[in-house]
Amino acid sequence: MSRPRVLVVAATHGNERNAPWLLESWRQNPSGLASQGLELALEIGNPAAYAANRRYLDRDLNRSFSADLLADASRPEREIGRARELLAQVGPDGAQPCSVVIDLHSTTSAMGNSLVVYGRRPTDLAFAAGIQGRLGLPIYLHEADAAQTGFLVERWPCGLVIEVGPVAQGVVDSTICRQTQLGVEACLAVIAEALQGTLRLPRRLVVHRHRGSVDVPREADGSPAGCVDRQRQGRDWQPIRAGDPLFRHRHGRPIRYEPCAELAEQPVWPVFINEAAYGEKGIALSLTSREIWPVEPGWGEALTALLQRGAPL
Amino acid sequence: MSRPRVLVVAATHGNERNAPWLLESWRQNPSGLASQGLELALEIGNPAAYAANRRYLDRDLNRSFSADLLADASRPEREIGRARELLAQVGPDGAQPCSVVIDLHSTTSAMGNSLVVYGRRPTDLAFAAGIQGRLGLPIYLHEADAAQTGFLVERWPCGLVIEVGPVAQGVVDSTICRQTQLGVEACLAVIAEALQGTLRLPRRLVVHRHRGSVDVPREADGSPAGCVDRQRQGRDWQPIRAGDPLFRHRHGRPIRYEPCAELAEQPVWPVFINEAAYGEKGIALSLTSREIWPVEPGWGEALTALLQRGAPL
Repeated sequence: MSRPRVLVVAATHGNERNAPWLLESWRQNPSGLASQGLELALEIGNPAAYAANRRYLDRDLNRSFSADLLADASRPEREIGRARELLAQVGPDGAQPCSVVIDLHSTTSAMGNSLVVYGRRPTDLAFAAGIQGRLGLPIYLHEADAAQTGFLVERWPCGLVIEVGPVAQGVVDSTICRQTQLGVEACLAVIAEALQGTLRLPRRLVVHRHRGSVDVPREADGSPAGCVDRQRQGRDWQPIRAGDPLFRHRHGRPIRYEPCAELAEQPVWPVFINEAAYGEKGIALSLTSREIWPVEPGWGEALTALLQRGAPL
Repeated sequence: MSRPRVLVVAATHGNERNAPWLLESWRQNPSGLASQGLELALEIGNPAAYAANRRYLDRDLNRSFSADLLADASRPEREIGRARELLAQVGPDGAQPCSVVIDLHSTTSAMGNSLVVYGRRPTDLAFAAGIQGRLGLPIYLHEADAAQTGFLVERWPCGLVIEVGPVAQGVVDSTICRQTQLGVEACLAVIAEALQGTLRLPRRLVVHRHRGSVDVPREADGSPAGCVDRQRQGRDWQPIRAGDPLFRHRHGRPIRYEPCAELAEQPVWPVFINEAAYGEKGIALSLTSREIWPVEPGWGEALTALLQRGAPL
């Protein structure tokens, strides 16, 4: 019986050391992961950046999977080459095709154990709902953000990111590893149920929908004028309202949250507050709206169909 | 009246972003720092590494101040050149001579707000005792470690490191900044008192004296076999005894602390547990003995003499 392969990627960012630590442990000792009998492909996303303990060498690998970048043979960045290589090996049409991808990340932000979903594909929403039903993890729904595109998981028919923090770059932290493993095992349990046709999803899905990102305040010359206020640092997933302290000017003045017109008169839930790697992207935090969606029957059917396609019984 | 200049260095490691954030704030707004009327030299230790947001480019600047490295004109590393440059500019015999240096660092370890003193120079011990008397900061006395030499502060007649954590590399955290500023202001208050001849030191100094460093457990091929146990992570400055969990093997087995013969039958106090930058040095943590020393009258006299030498009244 041919079973759909599940791709698990660690070190898509080379200085996020917890997931590759786990991956190596699972390679040495497969019974250390409750894999539900699924056939797994375990891949280091960016081996060269991992060896250098850097997020990336030439460009962010997790912004290198857009169709236009992949198609442009003139691009010299090593990460674009690595993206093509991963797709050729373990992409949905690769030599060892995988139907689902779980991309493992860590963050310096206090995100706890969380999921990131890109857009609203029914397979992804079913996958995320199944995991949320098991572990209660919060979900950051990233969409409609023209400045951030080309995410790895978008190139597979189903996939999401497990994002765990806070942990410093370059550090293996056993609590972060434990949380990551719990997340992966919940993913695999959901996949196994869908494959067996026994997937039961919760009735509701709680998502934190991306509404925009906010940079630190800056001087006229572009230099930073303030940093995240200590009353906001570490408070990811906690609502902020107009007038709440958000940043603090470097000379002490509080800088309060002032919503744009579109977000006026509603709280928003910040995520990825003060993530070290986002400074260069001009992102001090992102803002989300917390929404409760009914889980649609078609989501689970789509995930089940995707998985059973590779596994005729 | 000529007053001794006090050197304050930030970003000796280029990815420790909190101290350079403060330095820039003090440059823009000198009244934002309680400087006690002292003449300060504010320097970015490693500007090139700071611009690249990396700890260093060629080698650790804070291991580049040994006399033999500084004297060896054949060494190509940029940090050795930068060490010579700093000494020529603001060294004790530099163009703008400084008598005392405060070197500002941050760490991914849970060190809190702390001091690091290198060896037992009376001026340094007086300086540290004065700060401990004001703020109660713990002191890591680094000495007798042939594997770690060439620290910046050793090239000035008096100096120490303020080390604050936990904070991820690359992150400006307002609490870490606040703690760092408190430490600097305590340093400056002690210097001002010594300069005025009014320095009063506490009767006792509590030091955590370096006894050795411990690497993670490794396989025969050198690869790491375990990481810091979650019962030890974040517990810097808390004693550990024979048999306490220290590491955890990657397949789950606890690895307990077994003291060497020299340290048997006494607790030790770990510091710098799981500092991200020390992995490459083969250091998972360092072990210290907690000792209470009487403060000797000669210490304060040495510090006062050093400072008043540059300031004849």
